[in-house]
Amino acid sequence: MRILVLGGDGFLGSHLVDQVAELGHEVTVFDRFPYGISRNLEHLDDKIKLVSGEFANRDMVARALANQDIVYHFICATNPVESWHDPHVELDENLRTSIQLFELAEKSGVRKIVFPSSGGTVYGPQSEPVSETVTPRPFSPYGITKLATEHFLSYFRLHGGVSADVFRIGNAYGPRQPNLRSQGVIAVWMSQIIEGEAIEVYGDETTLRDYIFVKDVAFLMTHSLKNLDSSDLFNVGTGIGTNIFELLKIFQTVVDEPIHYTVRQRRNSDNASIVLDSSKILSHFPGFRFNLLAQTLPEMWEDFKMRYSNRQSHVECTSQ
Amino acid sequence: MRILVLGGDGFLGSHLVDQVAELGHEVTVFDRFPYGISRNLEHLDDKIKLVSGEFANRDMVARALANQDIVYHFICATNPVESWHDPHVELDENLRTSIQLFELAEKSGVRKIVFPSSGGTVYGPQSEPVSETVTPRPFSPYGITKLATEHFLSYFRLHGGVSADVFRIGNAYGPRQPNLRSQGVIAVWMSQIIEGEAIEVYGDETTLRDYIFVKDVAFLMTHSLKNLDSSDLFNVGTGIGTNIFELLKIFQTVVDEPIHYTVRQRRNSDNASIVLDSSKILSHFPGFRFNLLAQTLPEMWEDFKMRYSNRQSHVECTSQ
Repeated sequence: MRILVLGGDGFLGSHLVDQVAELGHEVTVFDRFPYGISRNLEHLDDKIKLVSGEFANRDMVARALANQDIVYHFICATNPVESWHDPHVELDENLRTSIQLFELAEKSGVRKIVFPSSGGTVYGPQSEPVSETVTPRPFSPYGITKLATEHFLSYFRLHGGVSADVFRIGNAYGPRQPNLRSQGVIAVWMSQIIEGEAIEVYGDETTLRDYIFVKDVAFLMTHSLKNLDSSDLFNVGTGIGTNIFELLKIFQTVVDEPIHYTVRQRRNSDNASIVLDSSKILSHFPGFRFNLLAQTLPEMWEDFKMRYSNRQSHVECTSQ
Repeated sequence: MRILVLGGDGFLGSHLVDQVAELGHEVTVFDRFPYGISRNLEHLDDKIKLVSGEFANRDMVARALANQDIVYHFICATNPVESWHDPHVELDENLRTSIQLFELAEKSGVRKIVFPSSGGTVYGPQSEPVSETVTPRPFSPYGITKLATEHFLSYFRLHGGVSADVFRIGNAYGPRQPNLRSQGVIAVWMSQIIEGEAIEVYGDETTLRDYIFVKDVAFLMTHSLKNLDSSDLFNVGTGIGTNIFELLKIFQTVVDEPIHYTVRQRRNSDNASIVLDSSKILSHFPGFRFNLLAQTLPEMWEDFKMRYSNRQSHVECTSQ
């Protein structure tokens, strides 16, 4: 099967690429590759094809789509915290370009689009674990636009017959997560520790999140390959709610450095609690067991230290 | 109370203006008024203030918002049939400008925004009458964008404290409806009859719509004036499903001309069936009774003939 992975050099995208390359598919990764090399896919070397391009560039995307069977769309130019201050960014940099992609996919004869939506922001405030039948009530520009993008996939399905799977993903964490300081509390904490700062703990015991290991997400998303003509919506979370102090406790057992922290009030852009009932996708993977935080944080911490501990000196080198 | 009605010279907007002017409020209408005069508000003469402006123009909208307590936002640049062929139009001409309005409203200190959403497109395919708790599944760019706009009002409520009421309205019909040929089957039929054409009947007996008299819609939307600090979501429909042949039958008893018609398949952009359970808004208006099609179509037909029968000669006059 010919698989195009947009943003396949990124955090979640590269793990998906690992999975589908391992299955023996013909994989093309479309990403920026600003330094001519891949950050996250070097180990796959000649097993996959890399295409460097800008997602906003219609012609580049159209060329990458030619002769593909299925497209995974991992490109996202924003995050919930930043778009909280400027909703137009979501329209300009995500929604518009995603619609453009869907139009081009329709024209190119791609049979299926796979879209990673946001389980953490699409549903809005919910007190119980949510299944896919719960009415979404997004309140951040990020979540609103993710939901609108899901709906636009329904439109393109009817308009041009392109199938689409949507995965509403919980708080994914794991190796290769970027240290952007604006998304992914575990990565942010690791970043702060590496920089010798006190970590910031937003929220309280009542704020539950559904942390899911990125490799589990990527594995479950391979479900879309089984039938290119089906369209469906799946939650992808562990169903386990962890509050921020429980997370901190696990974190302290993994990170081999003293941790200082300050507690701050939950930000307006953050959802209160979200736990995802993922029975639907799990019904397709009998016997599957999630990797848990205590099992997987050590691997992430090792990866994080290896990547970012010498970041300062790396930046100095390249600026000469 | 100071009320700004954006698009208040239009079909639904002007009926809302009638209602709120009658209640004695200070009403400002922002609309294009391309000929310097109002199409639909002449009868209110010196009772209201008219402001001519372009909705996309930030400064014009900002000036109109100054010192207003509540804003009704009736400006919509698209319709379901047209946006079916170009989803970008929704983003450029509706979503972006609506978000800009909400930003300006937040800055100006407006306390409440009232948004007429689309009961006919937001819910998507539904077999039973829908209440506000049903999960929306829009599939047309028009409906997707209306729903996203509703969600952006949740964002602005949290972000800046502006209250918002959303009304998901059924198939509104009545006097002053434009003869655009692309929206509002009753108006389209009346147009076709005036032009001596056969009318086009899209769909079949299973396609139910919830036709609601425009003056009933406007009356129910005055509910938002009762409390400027409340935010809520209401369906506004009669709860009566009418299929296209039942509508034709009522239509034939009203229109005093021979009617020829051709039956066509339902368009992809059309929803299958939609009937709105409006118990929630009705609970605020004890004793209210809807005007029914057979009672109100004669008034609309008289209005339509008066406005559009001599359209041709009017166009000739103004082009000299």
